[in-house]
Amino acid sequence: MLTVEEAEKIIAENLIELNTESLPTLQAWGRVLAEEVRADRDFPPFDRATMDGIAILHSSWAAGQRKFEIQGTQFAGMPPFKLTNPQNAIEIMTGAVCPQGADTIIRFEDLEFVQEGNTRWANVKLNDLEPRQNLHLQGIDKPKGDLMMPVGTLLGSPEIAVAASVGKTHLIVSQPPKIAIISNGDELVGIEETPLPYQVRRSNVFALATALAQNRFSAELFHLPDDRPFMEREIQKILTEFDILILSGGVSQGYADYIPLILNDLGVQKLFHQVKQRPGKPFWFGRKDQKIVFALPGNPVSTIMCFYRYTLPYLYQISQYPHSQAQFAQLAQDFTFKPDLSYFLGVKTQINAQGILQALPEAGHGSGDFANLLTCDGFLELPANQTYFRAGEVFKFWGFRTRN
Amino acid sequence: MLTVEEAEKIIAENLIELNTESLPTLQAWGRVLAEEVRADRDFPPFDRATMDGIAILHSSWAAGQRKFEIQGTQFAGMPPFKLTNPQNAIEIMTGAVCPQGADTIIRFEDLEFVQEGNTRWANVKLNDLEPRQNLHLQGIDKPKGDLMMPVGTLLGSPEIAVAASVGKTHLIVSQPPKIAIISNGDELVGIEETPLPYQVRRSNVFALATALAQNRFSAELFHLPDDRPFMEREIQKILTEFDILILSGGVSQGYADYIPLILNDLGVQKLFHQVKQRPGKPFWFGRKDQKIVFALPGNPVSTIMCFYRYTLPYLYQISQYPHSQAQFAQLAQDFTFKPDLSYFLGVKTQINAQGILQALPEAGHGSGDFANLLTCDGFLELPANQTYFRAGEVFKFWGFRTRN
Repeated sequence: MLTVEEAEKIIAENLIELNTESLPTLQAWGRVLAEEVRADRDFPPFDRATMDGIAILHSSWAAGQRKFEIQGTQFAGMPPFKLTNPQNAIEIMTGAVCPQGADTIIRFEDLEFVQEGNTRWANVKLNDLEPRQNLHLQGIDKPKGDLMMPVGTLLGSPEIAVAASVGKTHLIVSQPPKIAIISNGDELVGIEETPLPYQVRRSNVFALATALAQNRFSAELFHLPDDRPFMEREIQKILTEFDILILSGGVSQGYADYIPLILNDLGVQKLFHQVKQRPGKPFWFGRKDQKIVFALPGNPVSTIMCFYRYTLPYLYQISQYPHSQAQFAQLAQDFTFKPDLSYFLGVKTQINAQGILQALPEAGHGSGDFANLLTCDGFLELPANQTYFRAGEVFKFWGFRTRN
Repeated sequence: MLTVEEAEKIIAENLIELNTESLPTLQAWGRVLAEEVRADRDFPPFDRATMDGIAILHSSWAAGQRKFEIQGTQFAGMPPFKLTNPQNAIEIMTGAVCPQGADTIIRFEDLEFVQEGNTRWANVKLNDLEPRQNLHLQGIDKPKGDLMMPVGTLLGSPEIAVAASVGKTHLIVSQPPKIAIISNGDELVGIEETPLPYQVRRSNVFALATALAQNRFSAELFHLPDDRPFMEREIQKILTEFDILILSGGVSQGYADYIPLILNDLGVQKLFHQVKQRPGKPFWFGRKDQKIVFALPGNPVSTIMCFYRYTLPYLYQISQYPHSQAQFAQLAQDFTFKPDLSYFLGVKTQINAQGILQALPEAGHGSGDFANLLTCDGFLELPANQTYFRAGEVFKFWGFRTRN
């Protein structure tokens, strides 16, 4: 049987490539750029005022001039005026282009205005003035043609704004994988149904679909009854339409656990079956060409822990998203686990006064139900080769609450 | 002029209440529950096998019996069989109901099966067997009627699955606020346009809309030209239709900065104007009944920093989302800032080998352009009453990349 690390390695060796697509820029957030974005002109595109004030020629100031005649007002969005005389000034608003003949901005706070007849004057109350003060100079951020965002950039808020500012109405980004979530088991009924006493409602697919949605992946949901020929036909169809199949249930040793047999019949190559871990030992992983199958055990906690431990990091890797790996957290209480298996221990986390992420084991009732996860933020991965785990030791932590 | 802390306090004193709405359960993730969710039956609803094996009566084992006649197979989803004889066993699959007359499950791994004529027998290879072993007992997680999720629960993956398992096809959740993003300024043109040399494309609204979307808020976008009567009519209309207005631009001291005047004319009460901070000093905040207006300075970096510092935490608070507050990060380099203002310092973060979040200042060119934020993960909030900031000191950190 494989160890957790061996299973992880095999999964990481089977990354599939995603297609690209063009999206309107405002819808491309959270995706990864599949094209370069370059400056379509200098940034900033002109010498731009960073303060409200007056624009003057610095050499006039340097020559001792402290009183300037105002010849007009340069608003943002207006074509540049021109100083008709190097001793003049033009009032200027933040964001406006520096008038021709001027090279320095003095802020309103450093001025006193006086009106004399039809003429308006500004008296400067400053002692020091650098040339080009309060100007954001053309091309200083990026000259035209410069690379602003390389292929592989994850598009967040500043990146979408930069794309907008260089006139990209659409962006070529990688397409998310097409994911199918498939539950099976005759004991499962729809959530709108009233189950008979020995039945339960389908909830694993809801947990998986939500965990995917929280990470900006979407999926279609399927439920298959325990009817082998029917399952085989349906899974064959799903394999042609989707990139990633996430199955829940049907991989244990039970007589109704046909999934590995069906996948084998359909030509999906088994890359492993069973991992030295609890929960989730019966986990099955396989591949057919560019299609990947995660066949997870049907126990709700096994399903979701395998998903967070293996499937979600895989999706992050093929999507080139950062943070595909575990965090680390400090066990807050002694814990013992004897079997020679990795143990996924449900924990509640908090950051203590020293800034350390601490993980407190949540007892549950050894049950596989989601109700036991309500108080958990994720799970610690306790290694197989250890039995006694001491408070203060640090282990891998896989969070349920979000991944970002 | 208010300090950052005073501005924050006034904003927190003006929380508006959100309405509720009913959503299909699968779409309710990320929202906050506005109703209680209770167990509609016992959880688990029956004594359920947690392993594949055989179901027996423990007292037969206790009396020394080690060989059991198999009388049938209990699959998950089937009504319970009955032991016709307390010495018999029934094969049982994980998830199935415990047959009547049985009370303990022995795993396949601990059994050896033999066929004798038409009769199949299981020999038990175990030394210890507890009563009710490998059974998940009815009601042990939650008895029927018990509260599973209180009002105010944030709906993640386990919560959506629990709602599904108790048959909630819809959930009553709080409705997100209706948000309008409004830019103004004649220097701004659409992203599909080729700007004249003294114009720039509209990008602030893209940054804001993306930052909202990443946090599961949505917004409508508006752009208003610098035409005061037109702006007044439009903002009046927007005020009737939206809960939160986020304006970008028009709040400085410039002659085209009508926004505070217009808002005053429309009966929006100014709660403050100007905060002792850089960037973002001209920030204006007001309220009219249950409508809130964040009028942010138009400089791109000011807009986005004010948004993350004030607007997003406000939206988290009214939505009852956790994590509305800043994180903390350690300054990685000495830094000096003399003015008596709080300084929002763009930084790149990394977690060092000691698990400490470290913040490295990103120089930029003192520019207000988004291009300077591409290398930043967020900003440190350096307090106004300090000039020299030493490497190793810890300050509030506001992250751009995500909030969760």
